[in-house]
Amino acid sequence: MGVEERRQQLIGVALELFSQRSPDDVSIDEIAAAAGISRPLVYHYFPGKLSLYEAALKRAAEDLAGRFKEPQEGPLGARLLRAMRRFFDFVDDHGPGFSALMRGGPAVSVGGAHSMSHTSATNALIDSVRQAAYEQILSHLGVQDPPARLELVVRSWISLAESTALIWLDGRRIPRAELEAQLVHDFAALAAVSAAYDDEMGALLRRILKDEPPDGPFADLVARLLTLAS
Amino acid sequence: MGVEERRQQLIGVALELFSQRSPDDVSIDEIAAAAGISRPLVYHYFPGKLSLYEAALKRAAEDLAGRFKEPQEGPLGARLLRAMRRFFDFVDDHGPGFSALMRGGPAVSVGGAHSMSHTSATNALIDSVRQAAYEQILSHLGVQDPPARLELVVRSWISLAESTALIWLDGRRIPRAELEAQLVHDFAALAAVSAAYDDEMGALLRRILKDEPPDGPFADLVARLLTLAS
Repeated sequence: MGVEERRQQLIGVALELFSQRSPDDVSIDEIAAAAGISRPLVYHYFPGKLSLYEAALKRAAEDLAGRFKEPQEGPLGARLLRAMRRFFDFVDDHGPGFSALMRGGPAVSVGGAHSMSHTSATNALIDSVRQAAYEQILSHLGVQDPPARLELVVRSWISLAESTALIWLDGRRIPRAELEAQLVHDFAALAAVSAAYDDEMGALLRRILKDEPPDGPFADLVARLLTLAS
Repeated sequence: MGVEERRQQLIGVALELFSQRSPDDVSIDEIAAAAGISRPLVYHYFPGKLSLYEAALKRAAEDLAGRFKEPQEGPLGARLLRAMRRFFDFVDDHGPGFSALMRGGPAVSVGGAHSMSHTSATNALIDSVRQAAYEQILSHLGVQDPPARLELVVRSWISLAESTALIWLDGRRIPRAELEAQLVHDFAALAAVSAAYDDEMGALLRRILKDEPPDGPFADLVARLLTLAS
């Protein structure tokens, strides 16, 4: 194998292991064994576990950011729902690694030592995925220069999607399909709450709802809220 | 001053400095100068900046956890709103330190070095505040053994409150009083979305709404959603 090919293979093997268990618990020896090469050869391609972890995380981040891409056609609710399905596919595939990363590593470790998960490089990667999701959503909303309240709704909803996925991973006690649909409804609900305070948000929400089909997730939510309120 | 008195004074001085700037940017020399003692004397009470940071964070965490306490009387919406006001008071007072802590330190630093903000001890403190808020809310809802969907609504709403506060701190472009009320509405909205999928959540929400006054935040939200939907 060439250098770049071997590096890519090692990244793939490492990502698989880091996805299945907390990255802090995966050793270079295991990665070497899974790749069928010697430990010194791993160090030949990556100076340490952290650099291999960061390379694996970079690949995972690019994969995840790509899942928010969606053709700009059809009702917004259906587009968001497809993106949420792909997001939960990712979370499902990378559960333990995703939890360890987003929770900042295990809460108990020796002498207050730092977990590997949170370095400035990993934080920057997480932020780059959030930013990609944010920009995708704005482009689907057809907004280029978002007012502060829309930015708040979109960014805080992204954080809600993260925490919903993390809580789901802890026991998987709610069917994921329910949470995917629920997050689409949550987006509409957060936008509706914001619209209750601000005319600009109200106009935006009415524009979105106007194009929603009567059997789409947004219409469904309004009908259910009306039932609850009555 | 006695040893414990001096330690408490240093914690207070350090917390003040860590609140005003990113803790990574505050030096022991500054803490010593602000406390009016020598640098070696600071080290006499705390072996390093990290131990002083953790002690300051512990005090802040206890302060914040106490702000969710609220007498169990009167409508739930009004109770939540008072707790949100005290939460934003805290965020307002500790802005830069709160941001640095919750964002896991600056995204750019030298050679992938860890920020001081994220150790297992600081993560455990953050989780203890989240858990205190979670238990307070459950007790106000009168629920001892929450179903998975209620746990999800409460925990994901706590994360929404965190991210809303963080986004607010970045430029303070929305009046905080609006966000305090909005978060109370968001709680009702997330519960309503969950209730749309689950009868147990529906029954819980109806029980809460039943006791809400016609001029309270929940009734206000339903009225505004009805207006939007029409």
